[in-house]
Amino acid sequence: MGMVGGGKDAFIGAVHRSAAALDGKIELVCGAFSSSPEKSKASGKELFLPEDRVYGSYEEMIEKEKALPEGERMDFVSIVTPNYLHFPPAKLALENGFHVVCDKPMTYNLDEAKELEKLVEKSGLLFALTHNYTGYPMVKQARDMVKDGKIGKIRKIVVEYPQGWLAEKLEETGQKQASWRMDPKKAGIASCMGDIGTHAENLSEFITGVKISEMCADLHTFVEGRTLEDDGNILLKFENGASGVLHASQISIGEENNLNIRVYGEKGGLEWRQQEPNTLVLKYNDKPMEVYRTGAGFGFLSENALLHTRVPAGHPEGFIEAFANIYRNFALTLGAKLEGEKPDPKYYDFPTVHDGVRGMAFLESTVESSKSDKKWTKFKS
Amino acid sequence: MGMVGGGKDAFIGAVHRSAAALDGKIELVCGAFSSSPEKSKASGKELFLPEDRVYGSYEEMIEKEKALPEGERMDFVSIVTPNYLHFPPAKLALENGFHVVCDKPMTYNLDEAKELEKLVEKSGLLFALTHNYTGYPMVKQARDMVKDGKIGKIRKIVVEYPQGWLAEKLEETGQKQASWRMDPKKAGIASCMGDIGTHAENLSEFITGVKISEMCADLHTFVEGRTLEDDGNILLKFENGASGVLHASQISIGEENNLNIRVYGEKGGLEWRQQEPNTLVLKYNDKPMEVYRTGAGFGFLSENALLHTRVPAGHPEGFIEAFANIYRNFALTLGAKLEGEKPDPKYYDFPTVHDGVRGMAFLESTVESSKSDKKWTKFKS
Amino acid sequence: MGMVGGGKDAFIGAVHRSAAALDGKIELVCGAFSSSPEKSKASGKELFLPEDRVYGSYEEMIEKEKALPEGERMDFVSIVTPNYLHFPPAKLALENGFHVVCDKPMTYNLDEAKELEKLVEKSGLLFALTHNYTGYPMVKQARDMVKDGKIGKIRKIVVEYPQGWLAEKLEETGQKQASWRMDPKKAGIASCMGDIGTHAENLSEFITGVKISEMCADLHTFVEGRTLEDDGNILLKFENGASGVLHASQISIGEENNLNIRVYGEKGGLEWRQQEPNTLVLKYNDKPMEVYRTGAGFGFLSENALLHTRVPAGHPEGFIEAFANIYRNFALTLGAKLEGEKPDPKYYDFPTVHDGVRGMAFLESTVESSKSDKKWTKFKS
Amino acid sequence: MGMVGGGKDAFIGAVHRSAAALDGKIELVCGAFSSSPEKSKASGKELFLPEDRVYGSYEEMIEKEKALPEGERMDFVSIVTPNYLHFPPAKLALENGFHVVCDKPMTYNLDEAKELEKLVEKSGLLFALTHNYTGYPMVKQARDMVKDGKIGKIRKIVVEYPQGWLAEKLEETGQKQASWRMDPKKAGIASCMGDIGTHAENLSEFITGVKISEMCADLHTFVEGRTLEDDGNILLKFENGASGVLHASQISIGEENNLNIRVYGEKGGLEWRQQEPNTLVLKYNDKPMEVYRTGAGFGFLSENALLHTRVPAGHPEGFIEAFANIYRNFALTLGAKLEGEKPDPKYYDFPTVHDGVRGMAFLESTVESSKSDKKWTKFKS
Repeated sequence: MGMVGGGKDAFIGAVHRSAAALDGKIELVCGAFSSSPEKSKASGKELFLPEDRVYGSYEEMIEKEKALPEGERMDFVSIVTPNYLHFPPAKLALENGFHVVCDKPMTYNLDEAKELEKLVEKSGLLFALTHNYTGYPMVKQARDMVKDGKIGKIRKIVVEYPQGWLAEKLEETGQKQASWRMDPKKAGIASCMGDIGTHAENLSEFITGVKISEMCADLHTFVEGRTLEDDGNILLKFENGASGVLHASQISIGEENNLNIRVYGEKGGLEWRQQEPNTLVLKYNDKPMEVYRTGAGFGFLSENALLHTRVPAGHPEGFIEAFANIYRNFALTLGAKLEGEKPDPKYYDFPTVHDGVRGMAFLESTVESSKSDKKWTKFKS
Repeated sequence: MGMVGGGKDAFIGAVHRSAAALDGKIELVCGAFSSSPEKSKASGKELFLPEDRVYGSYEEMIEKEKALPEGERMDFVSIVTPNYLHFPPAKLALENGFHVVCDKPMTYNLDEAKELEKLVEKSGLLFALTHNYTGYPMVKQARDMVKDGKIGKIRKIVVEYPQGWLAEKLEETGQKQASWRMDPKKAGIASCMGDIGTHAENLSEFITGVKISEMCADLHTFVEGRTLEDDGNILLKFENGASGVLHASQISIGEENNLNIRVYGEKGGLEWRQQEPNTLVLKYNDKPMEVYRTGAGFGFLSENALLHTRVPAGHPEGFIEAFANIYRNFALTLGAKLEGEKPDPKYYDFPTVHDGVRGMAFLESTVESSKSDKKWTKFKS
Repeated sequence: MGMVGGGKDAFIGAVHRSAAALDGKIELVCGAFSSSPEKSKASGKELFLPEDRVYGSYEEMIEKEKALPEGERMDFVSIVTPNYLHFPPAKLALENGFHVVCDKPMTYNLDEAKELEKLVEKSGLLFALTHNYTGYPMVKQARDMVKDGKIGKIRKIVVEYPQGWLAEKLEETGQKQASWRMDPKKAGIASCMGDIGTHAENLSEFITGVKISEMCADLHTFVEGRTLEDDGNILLKFENGASGVLHASQISIGEENNLNIRVYGEKGGLEWRQQEPNTLVLKYNDKPMEVYRTGAGFGFLSENALLHTRVPAGHPEGFIEAFANIYRNFALTLGAKLEGEKPDPKYYDFPTVHDGVRGMAFLESTVESSKSDKKWTKFKS
Repeated sequence: MGMVGGGKDAFIGAVHRSAAALDGKIELVCGAFSSSPEKSKASGKELFLPEDRVYGSYEEMIEKEKALPEGERMDFVSIVTPNYLHFPPAKLALENGFHVVCDKPMTYNLDEAKELEKLVEKSGLLFALTHNYTGYPMVKQARDMVKDGKIGKIRKIVVEYPQGWLAEKLEETGQKQASWRMDPKKAGIASCMGDIGTHAENLSEFITGVKISEMCADLHTFVEGRTLEDDGNILLKFENGASGVLHASQISIGEENNLNIRVYGEKGGLEWRQQEPNTLVLKYNDKPMEVYRTGAGFGFLSENALLHTRVPAGHPEGFIEAFANIYRNFALTLGAKLEGEKPDPKYYDFPTVHDGVRGMAFLESTVESSKSDKKWTKFKS
């Protein structure tokens, strides 16, 4: 793995590295960790990389790695830069035959996303988008139960993603995470919806298997002086006739990272909350609530839930483990591909470039809807 | 107290009687418990009432009670009939000098509500509307903390009221509670929003002290063959600039009576959930979450919270106790009034005819908004 | 109902009155509310009782009520005094033909308890002991499930009752509840174990149906200057071979009224917590946890659970409702008896004088064990 | 790092490897993964190790690694074998100048533990014992708050460790984890208390800083045919006068890995539960409960809590992260030592050989107490 971005002070770069390292299947072999060559070097040193594989730019990295003999060069690029710097290295990597893992939202805008989709399709290379929350075992369990008809035809979906860390103007204090997320040049047309709203959108479609068809968005900027929204509420229509509510916020003060979803079908309902990710609740009208829990020791979880679990029940698996499931699956799928085998669908289970296109369409539809006086706006395709 | 409605099989009548009895300040002295005189008699007998004070109709009750000497006649009427039978007995009671406690939604439509408001104002009589959830001690605590500025200027309100009991067509099984609620002749223009949505609306305004100004509603009927909606999602604007989400449902299968609210201000957030009503959570960015709990023994609760509490902390107070707080306050206020004293504002703390008007305006605005293609509809006044 | 004790400032008297009033089946008709005749009169007035039925002493009450014509006199006595004043009025009531409801622990010592048991047996009168926690619907459900073999043969029982209200020397501040509970002349040989430990003992035997046979107690007095214990931990052996732990405390600071129990059998485990009394959790190794919830609307609860429930699921029932279940059952059983009918075993379901004897034996065994150097002490019989 | 044990099918070996890898500071360079050289080879291959550093025995590993040039050889040994195989490789490693990380309980018996302690002291080498639960950020926070006097002088400690996975005779099904834990030749004199009871003992002393002085143990074997105990309840006395309860179980059916602790002092109480490890509750009599949560973003956590946290609040950290904190601290301390620097006490914060001696003393005292008729047995030293 070669990394683009993720130098010192970056939050998500360290998460990607831990996630990639957790299962001993991926080795960080090179990186272009910063747009400043010196910072990149310093970061590489801290990561015990040999000097000659710490590059001053992603262009240099892709060029020089490509020149290395097969077996020595990196197998794939992991892109952990701010949004506006996803597309250029992803494109260059794909054009030079490198597989890609990329953070979300996938690109700066929908056009870039569609271009990337074409590149991936043409190249036949693997592309994983780190919608990491779909890596949790109980999210797999939820999806599998919906698919198996356990809750019946879906009627209503409520998905929330409240955070509170931007309730004050943190971007003016020099906090790097806040700064670029509130800068439209770096983040794109949305802040709250891009950073976390897309996770909510992705999660709801991942678990239910139904797609959003129309939306009615109400975006807000509560903290004065911001260009981008820091909060938003959306009414949803799904293709199967279900209705939905999605709301996300960066100003819901006191909230940490409270992504959660409730899905109600004709036969049952389910509830999952990211802050206690090892618990999945099934609700019925005619029998007691059932609480499913992550854990390798039990016989009643879905095969997919068990495949994404490392330790017995009651040994909590968290954010990094879920993230690592994306990387582990990517590594196993890539491994199969490199061996010329057919990838195992059990492991070819991670978000792809198509999720990324859908996420960007969600963002553009949301912003358009929020500006409109009409109640309903079609989900762009 | 004389009761209108609440005969055998009625759910809410028994709740009203228990609530009225709990504190030993109110005595049930007469009733017209059913539109069938025989059923009314039977119910009265079960309640140990003397035969001559069990009436065949509310008209008879009001006429005969009025004829009794002062001190013997009932002091007030409690109306616990289906929605379409709230207005006629309330009107008659007020016109004949009786105070009124009435279930919600207050009337069949907004016009009736406004007429009732005028009647109350003209008569100077007391009128309590049983938005019982505002009777919980922790709801009082929440309101008091908002008023004291503990969470700062309010930015966002999320209020939910999911239930699942009507996920199937229960009204066709002869279940009385379901039947009238799904019958537009008895329930009015809304089912879900009238039965529970108004509670959510009332609770959000009660706690925050700010009023809804505009709404964007999306109502649904999921169970085939129903005339009225069984689910609805609403985006809200509040007069102070806050945004909000209100959703209520009768088809969120597996949900019991899950009214809950989260309010986020500039300095803190609060969360209250009716199913665990003795807990109020305060959230901050800069200090640990605080958990306030109902309980007479502690010194840090608001005076109002303590005034509506009967037992020490950890002795759970529930639905009936909260309901009883409305009755207890009504009785104390009425007692003062009857003694010619000025009612104590600490006890003159129950929903009134004005809340009832607002609730009916909410219903008519919601239904209008749901039919509209425009995003925003003004809250009727 | 005539009440002994429960004047102004008394906590538990008001609870008994509310509990008795809740279901409209019991009327407070007289009382001797205080050892001070003046205070008794004042309390009676506040309760809207006629002056001639507010008595200066329980002896007077029993004598004068007995002299009233049948149908006018009280049917039973409710005793809500401090422990040392349970036995004398109970004895006198029974000797004069009055049924009795009595607070716990039943008497001042085991000898009194056994004498009372004989009196009850000889008289054929009804006697209810208000181990109120057994009145909760989910406690009935737990008992019924154990009886039905749902969790198999019982192996381990953990029952806790931590409180924190006496972490400081509250009895020196004039707080009445604290004063008599820490006074060995009024409370008996134990404070913490008498006030709350007996509830834990009673609950564990009620739910499991197995009896404690031996114990190893370690009682403590943490607050200096106290004569009685304010904390205690006990190892238990049960007759069926199960092991157990019981601990109770008045100095577990910050704890409210945290009675809870976990029972583990060969097939499953159950957990119930009084502070959230409407939830009962069933745990298994081979299927998901099940959460049972109080609520009249569902079809899968035990008949007994439903019989002790007033409102639909999600409308929380609390401490007073559970307490009221004891009174309601007592009233229905008494009613049947007065009508010459055979009491319905569904309602003849409340703690009796035998539970009271067992509670006093528990206290004396516990104190003996705590003083002993031997590990195990037999449960007195 | 060279690993002893942890071949295929071993649960804890994989955890150790993930924990060591998580922060990119430790590399697995060699191993003797099984007593069968073939299995060891196979495991080494799966772990991408070069063949010549996969050894057939720990003796071979230590000998050959020692022969490698400095800088190439492993820095320390990680021992993840069953209990009876901790001492021999630990001793050999220390005698040959290798630092050691060892799983718990530290040895087969107390004598071995004391010998190891002497070896560590004499050699000046680092020794970490993986009482991993002390690695959780909120456990650090709890310890720091107790040390800072936040809850005052400690009065009562309740520590529990219920599991249910051995409620049936799993060891007869060929399940490897169960087999050796129930075999006295491999596990030692205790099963339940050795495997999990010691964690509870260690946690209680770690958080409170006070030592157990006496105990009264009641151990049980519920599943027929077992030699070792599968459940146990213990009353505790602490050196400072506090009292305590410790119970642990492998037959508490339906329980996962429910280690939890409550500590009550004179000013406040705290509660931590391993299954939701990112939450620490502080309880008071005179102010609302406070909920502390793991999270790098907040300013009010202790320095130590923050140092052991990787991601912002609401991004759950779990079992592996806590485990990794032991390894990370060991690596940083070892790094300083290798550089000739004084280890930073902030990182020299992991359980050592002294905790291991104490754990073995706990086991021997517990078993002795359980066999005794006397109530109290001194904690061996």
